[in-house]
Amino acid sequence: MPKQNSVSRHIVLTSHPSRVGPKPIPIKWGASDPMERGPVIATLTKQAHRNVIGTHSGSYAVYRALAVARGVLQSDHRADLTNTSPVEHIGPHPSWFDLEKIVSVDPFGAIVGEVFTSYYEQGYDIRPTIAITKAHINMPELQEAVAKGRLTIDGKIMKSGGDLVVTKAAIEPVWYLPGIAKRFQITEGDLRRALFEQTGGMFPELVTRSDLEVFLPPIGGVTVYILGDIAAITDPNKPLAVRVHDECNGSDVFGSDICTCRPYLVHGIEVCVQTAQEGGAGVIVYCRKEGRALGEVTKFLVYNARKRQEGGDRADAYFERTECVAGVQDMRFQELMPDVLHWLGITRIDRMVSMSNMKYNAITEAGIEIVERIPIPEDLIPQDARVEIEAKKAAGYYTTGEVLDSNGLGSVKGRALTD
Amino acid sequence: MPKQNSVSRHIVLTSHPSRVGPKPIPIKWGASDPMERGPVIATLTKQAHRNVIGTHSGSYAVYRALAVARGVLQSDHRADLTNTSPVEHIGPHPSWFDLEKIVSVDPFGAIVGEVFTSYYEQGYDIRPTIAITKAHINMPELQEAVAKGRLTIDGKIMKSGGDLVVTKAAIEPVWYLPGIAKRFQITEGDLRRALFEQTGGMFPELVTRSDLEVFLPPIGGVTVYILGDIAAITDPNKPLAVRVHDECNGSDVFGSDICTCRPYLVHGIEVCVQTAQEGGAGVIVYCRKEGRALGEVTKFLVYNARKRQEGGDRADAYFERTECVAGVQDMRFQELMPDVLHWLGITRIDRMVSMSNMKYNAITEAGIEIVERIPIPEDLIPQDARVEIEAKKAAGYYTTGEVLDSNGLGSVKGRALTD
Repeated sequence: MPKQNSVSRHIVLTSHPSRVGPKPIPIKWGASDPMERGPVIATLTKQAHRNVIGTHSGSYAVYRALAVARGVLQSDHRADLTNTSPVEHIGPHPSWFDLEKIVSVDPFGAIVGEVFTSYYEQGYDIRPTIAITKAHINMPELQEAVAKGRLTIDGKIMKSGGDLVVTKAAIEPVWYLPGIAKRFQITEGDLRRALFEQTGGMFPELVTRSDLEVFLPPIGGVTVYILGDIAAITDPNKPLAVRVHDECNGSDVFGSDICTCRPYLVHGIEVCVQTAQEGGAGVIVYCRKEGRALGEVTKFLVYNARKRQEGGDRADAYFERTECVAGVQDMRFQELMPDVLHWLGITRIDRMVSMSNMKYNAITEAGIEIVERIPIPEDLIPQDARVEIEAKKAAGYYTTGEVLDSNGLGSVKGRALTD
Repeated sequence: MPKQNSVSRHIVLTSHPSRVGPKPIPIKWGASDPMERGPVIATLTKQAHRNVIGTHSGSYAVYRALAVARGVLQSDHRADLTNTSPVEHIGPHPSWFDLEKIVSVDPFGAIVGEVFTSYYEQGYDIRPTIAITKAHINMPELQEAVAKGRLTIDGKIMKSGGDLVVTKAAIEPVWYLPGIAKRFQITEGDLRRALFEQTGGMFPELVTRSDLEVFLPPIGGVTVYILGDIAAITDPNKPLAVRVHDECNGSDVFGSDICTCRPYLVHGIEVCVQTAQEGGAGVIVYCRKEGRALGEVTKFLVYNARKRQEGGDRADAYFERTECVAGVQDMRFQELMPDVLHWLGITRIDRMVSMSNMKYNAITEAGIEIVERIPIPEDLIPQDARVEIEAKKAAGYYTTGEVLDSNGLGSVKGRALTD
């Protein structure tokens, strides 16, 4: 394999604001005119054009680097974006231009090819951070919902065989650092410093380039699944159902019975289908925050600690075990999550398929009304997941049913590791 | 929220090898005595102890940094690892001590609490990079396999209701850079430089710390699901089934019909159950390499380009569209994938549930024998996924059936975006 990208030259350990020569195109976050806002340019082919810290594709940038190292990808490859533009148009919405509402996604991320044509003509390498396509999806559990009469095949939203017609969007995180700091009520300097030092020294530009206010963090993003008409999402006369779901690979894919993740996701989709069939829309927001954003290794360590502790796995010690291992009960920072709802232009959610008080608080504090909260139906809760659900209800999760006291929580027990 | 972690001190942009004072504990990759090999220390609480580049939890380190910035996590928090040790013992196997066989996971990653006790006593903060637990999983499709008589409930491997009893392991990537470079036949210098520069300047220590040979990249890891007895995996007299599955969220979770990912995964699990019930073992390796390690935004852009190109989505232009957008057809680097099989001690796979020539070549070139390859059953292929499967077969994927010529490929068409 030829090492065509290997050339001998000085390695620049970090960059500094340039005092001479052309400055990168400024990003004026929150501006309503996209040309005034400016494009997000994270290209690696022309350093001088970069106006952000980090690069595209989240953590997959590491694989891209491997491909360049091996000589299988030309380091100056530019994406041919022919025919890739969004299949459905989303926005612009007033929330796009509100510095309080969107700080962690680029609202123009899907339509760069449309609003930055003049920059493309000047040779700038601008990549979409959002891609919107259409798909047919199918989950076996929904066929049961059809068989039991809870869902109806209408030939448009739900086709024969249970196929759902969806619009879906993949969204990369784009962080406006002053806005993130404000959201968290910390200084931008403290934020930048922690992001650099507490990752083991990732991206020194976080501290040397205070002139660059936008950061593309190497983390997973968000996928949005939309059922029904896009226009219904923002139509005040039409109902909207939403589930915000944080990734849980063990349940979402493999159906592990220690939590309610997949059953609740499926129920969310069921409510979305019903709402879309009533003329409204349904939205599933799938966030890549495995194991409460602690990752799967930590998650499995916690599972072992829960099941082996004195007295076995039980609801009264549910959160404690995570905190012992991870130092926190949860690391998902729901405060950033409503941004994607604002990108969609959502101002009211009629049916919120979630019991999480953290999600509820984040969404309502972001100025979005929640009319009704829909708990997971009792018969969808796996037996071993009782520990989780009772602990969460006692900690403030929404329920219309009973909340157990500490005695009651102590008696809700999960399976032993040996079973 | 108190900013308890914010102190005013000099920010070190990158570190350099120390000429004075104590050096970090060396890592002698491939050594069979764990004390000679040395622990992987990626702690952020004591800089002087660190003997690797990067830190734990892959990309979730960014969330950890946010938690410290907000003051909700003490920067000096140390994990309480009580009761977290592996539920099943895996290894050591001879492959653990072979520099050619494992370069991207730490074979001692699960048992650090057992082999590095003396370092813990000296105050070192050593974290597991592998966690092993047990679970019950259930996939609705498997109940159909029971109903149709392809699977049997035996009460041990498959319980009533279709619950499967599994051992599962979550594995963080731990890269021995000299070994990765050798695997890819490039110099370590070129590898380090590309990993730094082609990620937008992530981790300058990659270029300043040639004395640190181990890197914990901020990428997703691997989850292993094991059915049957662990001992059967390495027993030459017992059959072993394996599926190596690369993440595809759209299909694995939501059942998108444009590819065969979830149906093939389910079939893999079915073969694993059958093999375990014959007294052998089944292994599913789930790799976090969404969209061929290009990420989901790129994936959806490619979907649009495929479905909108002249002549519509068709098998003869399947790979071309990915290459136009991404510059490569695939970025998964299967060359690193066999490491996890070597961690499990696998030397022969009786039933390999995969048609991928890239996976086959990587595994057999890593010295693991593959006896039989099992294609996806025809009736599990969604209609819209015909484009993918025929294109892949023509490109070298294993099949016992017909391989289409260019005319034939041109006539295999997928659904339009408007349908």
